Amino acid sequence: MDSITVTLGERSYPITIAAGLFSNPASFMPLQRGDLAMLVTNDTLASLYLEPVRSVLEQAGVIVDQVILPDGEQHKSLAVLDQVFTALLQKPHGRDTTLIALGGGVIGDLVGFAAASYQRGVRFIQAPTTLLSQVDSSVGGKTAVNHPLGKNMIGAFYQPASVVIDIDSLKTLPANELASGLAEVIKYGIILDYDFFVWLEDHLDELLSLDPGALAYCIRRCCELKAQVVAADEREHGLRALLNLGHTYGHAIETHMGYGNWLHGEAVAAGMVMAANAARRLGQFSDEDLARTRKLLLRAGLPVSGPEQMAPEDYLPHMMRDKKVLSGKLRLVLPLGLGSAEVRTGIENNIVLASIADCQD
Amino acid sequence: MDSITVTLGERSYPITIAAGLFSNPASFMPLQRGDLAMLVTNDTLASLYLEPVRSVLEQAGVIVDQVILPDGEQHKSLAVLDQVFTALLQKPHGRDTTLIALGGGVIGDLVGFAAASYQRGVRFIQAPTTLLSQVDSSVGGKTAVNHPLGKNMIGAFYQPASVVIDIDSLKTLPANELASGLAEVIKYGIILDYDFFVWLEDHLDELLSLDPGALAYCIRRCCELKAQVVAADEREHGLRALLNLGHTYGHAIETHMGYGNWLHGEAVAAGMVMAANAARRLGQFSDEDLARTRKLLLRAGLPVSGPEQMAPEDYLPHMMRDKKVLSGKLRLVLPLGLGSAEVRTGIENNIVLASIADCQD
Ligand SMILES: NC(=O)c1ccc[n+]([C@@H]2O[C@H](COP(=O)([O-])OP(=O)(O)OC[C@H]3O[C@@H](n4cnc5c(N)ncnc54)[C@H](O)[C@@H]3O)[C@@H](O)[C@H]2O)c1
Ligand SMILES: NC(=O)c1ccc[n+]([C@@H]2O[C@H](COP(=O)([O-])OP(=O)(O)OC[C@H]3O[C@@H](n4cnc5c(N)ncnc54)[C@H](O)[C@@H]3O)[C@@H](O)[C@H]2O)c1
Ligand SMILES: [Zn+2]
Ligand SMILES: [Zn+2]
Repeated sequence: MDSITVTLGERSYPITIAAGLFSNPASFMPLQRGDLAMLVTNDTLASLYLEPVRSVLEQAGVIVDQVILPDGEQHKSLAVLDQVFTALLQKPHGRDTTLIALGGGVIGDLVGFAAASYQRGVRFIQAPTTLLSQVDSSVGGKTAVNHPLGKNMIGAFYQPASVVIDIDSLKTLPANELASGLAEVIKYGIILDYDFFVWLEDHLDELLSLDPGALAYCIRRCCELKAQVVAADEREHGLRALLNLGHTYGHAIETHMGYGNWLHGEAVAAGMVMAANAARRLGQFSDEDLARTRKLLLRAGLPVSGPEQMAPEDYLPHMMRDKKVLSGKLRLVLPLGLGSAEVRTGIENNIVLASIADCQD
Repeated sequence: MDSITVTLGERSYPITIAAGLFSNPASFMPLQRGDLAMLVTNDTLASLYLEPVRSVLEQAGVIVDQVILPDGEQHKSLAVLDQVFTALLQKPHGRDTTLIALGGGVIGDLVGFAAASYQRGVRFIQAPTTLLSQVDSSVGGKTAVNHPLGKNMIGAFYQPASVVIDIDSLKTLPANELASGLAEVIKYGIILDYDFFVWLEDHLDELLSLDPGALAYCIRRCCELKAQVVAADEREHGLRALLNLGHTYGHAIETHMGYGNWLHGEAVAAGMVMAANAARRLGQFSDEDLARTRKLLLRAGLPVSGPEQMAPEDYLPHMMRDKKVLSGKLRLVLPLGLGSAEVRTGIENNIVLASIADCQD
């Protein structure tokens, strides 16, 4: 059982990574006998993991309530958040309750914000079940729901008490969702760790076949990398922005296509190739590194170009609206070779347009 | 111009107290030329103070947007909060915006929570216009909206960048709202500061006639007292609980009668007399102190007994549901003479019932 610690002073917390954690009562520490908990999941995951997790907690003497939400990004809303509050207040759960988020990033983000705001903050345990949520959204304390006028516009920085990653849960994850998570995994290699990028080139097939050793190493390394960044910059003032490589382009794709039609990781994969092209045009990324990036993404089953329906001009309005640039200037994360990246401001529109066009043939 | 500092490490902030602040551009520091701000108020206050505040900000070069919400505690809801987010996103306002809450505790609490959660936290300035919000809700960082199943159940601890108290604004405040604020003022005397209680006995008439010197001193002293408590206990683990003197009884009155029928301070006033009676029955509060408490509250125009329609038995279910006792044991703040108080757990129901009955003849 692999465990790492996210170091944030008194809000530090452990991330435990192993197969079989959902069947092990010790996984859900610090919950203990007599504690009250609210297990929140969606209808897809309820049929797969709700009963095992519930019974393991009950064996440990925890009093477990549950809420089953509808599945889908469109339900990451204030209205569905309110359903969680209603369930908590019906019992009622007090300030000493613990919310457990059992699901992917949608459940994690929504339940995290519910925990941050229910009675101004209650304990929160993440049990992420998608690769994306295991390597990305469960580390760093960003929680949110969407607003009709913008994604993740309402939320809080709120750290969980612990994160429980049962890699067995990936066995039921659809292949395109696994690939979507791999986009974020590859992102860490590009922005922070050349050796990890090389490790991914060497072990991608094992990851795709869900080899437990490879998965555990990969998830652990990603959590470590993200934890380091977050510890250095909890509230996203500087370093943390690097994690947005590919995301400004990607959000344009997700928004234009309507959320859900392109998976987040798919949009980010295409966006990373666009960012790499922008970097290449600015003379800070080689043709060879671009080729390696594209190849690794393609092997992972990810797109390396945007949707056919989108012209380069279609990206710009969305990119200008992205919250990372709301103050007016276009600001992008660009790679500096494989293994490092920078935030670059004041990028000309023609470079952006060309970097998108580069991915369209 | 009186200014005190609430000391909370890097989240310390100034509270400025004076007449005429709403007509002085310097009041709304740290806002400066070119900054974008969203002024949030309600329809009652809009006709009184929106234009002056707006024009003073515009004179200072601030770009000002506004949202006018419906007036009333029933609008301190997730739905109305969403109206603020919609207004912010329509412009759109970015992470560098500043929300200004112009109004009483309802506006302050709702706008504070909006600021805490819009894009995971933007700058927030409080401009409280009721005595209650000036001496209580604008200090301490508690923000919230109500849920149909419970008051203030959804919120955050979130500190403003500054608090601007223009005591001239009290001139338009209805008399019963002024009295409601005086209940909290008197509360500080009882729980924390005997000398201040005596000062209130000596200066209550000046406060009621809105004498500027008396008001400024009184508000300043209350803010200091609350700031000390909050600095010692930001997240309400211990000392801060003392501020709830009278509130558990008071919430029972507010809930049973339907919010808005009894003003918060009115319910708290009656609740403080009940708590004083419980303390007297437990041998820790003298008949003489009880008489002084009742007399001061009566002079302020406040009730010293609960609503006629409510029997002592009607209080208990609400008091047991209060979030301060959700974990099961009845826990009350009780005065220990005038000028100090304690949190006491495991109080017998018959003492509580008798303390309410004491106030019913
Ligand atoms: N907080 C952060 O820092 C952060 C970072 C990245 C992404 N996010 C957010 O995460 C969300 C995307 O997360 P996601 O990709 O996990 O999507 P998701 O939560 O929607 O999960 C994807 C799909 O897979 C299903 N699923 C989940 N686990 C499964 C399993 N083990 N077996 C079978 N099916 C399973 C889900 O029900 C869903 O249909 C977005 O809302 C995004 O904004 C947040
Ligand atoms: N955050 C905290 O620590 C804290 C503490 C105490 C109370 N509160 C909250 O504060 C709220 C009560 O606040 P409140 O008593 O200020 O009520 P309020 O905000 O509803 O104001 C009372 C009424 O007075 C009007 N008004 C306000 N200022 C005026 C002025 N200058 N002239 C004329 N009319 C004016 C308002 O429009 C309203 O109709 C409750 O929701 C309570 O939960 C919060
Ligand atoms: Zn992402
Ligand atoms: Zn109060």
